[in-house]
Amino acid sequence: MNAMHITASVFINDDERCLHQDLEIWLEKLAPHEPVARYRHNTGEDNADAHLKRSIMGREAVVAVTNGMLDFGPWEQIFYGEFDGRRKKRVLVKIIGE
Amino acid sequence: MNAMHITASVFINDDERCLHQDLEIWLEKLAPHEPVARYRHNTGEDNADAHLKRSIMGREAVVAVTNGMLDFGPWEQIFYGEFDGRRKKRVLVKIIGE
Amino acid sequence: MNAMHITASVFINDDERCLHQDLEIWLEKLAPHEPVARYRHNTGEDNADAHLKRSIMGREAVVAVTNGMLDFGPWEQIFYGEFDGRRKKRVLVKIIGE
Repeated sequence: MNAMHITASVFINDDERCLHQDLEIWLEKLAPHEPVARYRHNTGEDNADAHLKRSIMGREAVVAVTNGMLDFGPWEQIFYGEFDGRRKKRVLVKIIGE
Repeated sequence: MNAMHITASVFINDDERCLHQDLEIWLEKLAPHEPVARYRHNTGEDNADAHLKRSIMGREAVVAVTNGMLDFGPWEQIFYGEFDGRRKKRVLVKIIGE
Repeated sequence: MNAMHITASVFINDDERCLHQDLEIWLEKLAPHEPVARYRHNTGEDNADAHLKRSIMGREAVVAVTNGMLDFGPWEQIFYGEFDGRRKKRVLVKIIGE
């Protein structure tokens, strides 16, 4: 399963609102949006930081399936991380197997 | 193959003890455990940093198999990264193919 | 598809030269090459930072295929990230499916 956009992520973690806030704050520290002019990509666009954030969080998740159920560990859930808030976003889910 | 815990990683790198120490020190710098109170997730728990470290190192590794052998490059080995030292941990290994 | 070297990455992002410069500058800030002596791995080698950079960017990309075409979102392209400039490098591409 993968984000179909290069400024977004599909990742697996805890469904805990405060943790997601921690993630946002932390990503903003590692790859700040401002100052926009620090990034060479930002000519006409201002979302270079979103590309970097997506690089940390990853593009895709691969999850095993057994008897029609996702093989999740405790608390594992799949999230879509949106880092620039542009366009309509889509996720691709592909299932293969016997 | 994936860690079944949201504070742990399965990753592939060199089996070199000093490198693993470098990784630990580096992750601690990017996502410090202390001060525990900096993270909103840490109410009752104090492992928010472990969730962040796992986000950098990734949850899973997908390895091709040919004739029953893992298609590894030179020095590639699979490791389990444990970032909070809680609970008994498990790894899921799923093999698919013809 | 994966890098066969533990100091390199296969990743998916925009084919935009300035963005790739941003990525390089950003990775150098998160995992600086210098001072070489800061890393314990660097005894005889000096590429510890390349191992860390590859940890952020990831080792592999898993891409769905439908009717012989990669299921890419807009602008998605696959890149090989080389972080230490040593050895001849190789990428493994494995295709599975019905």
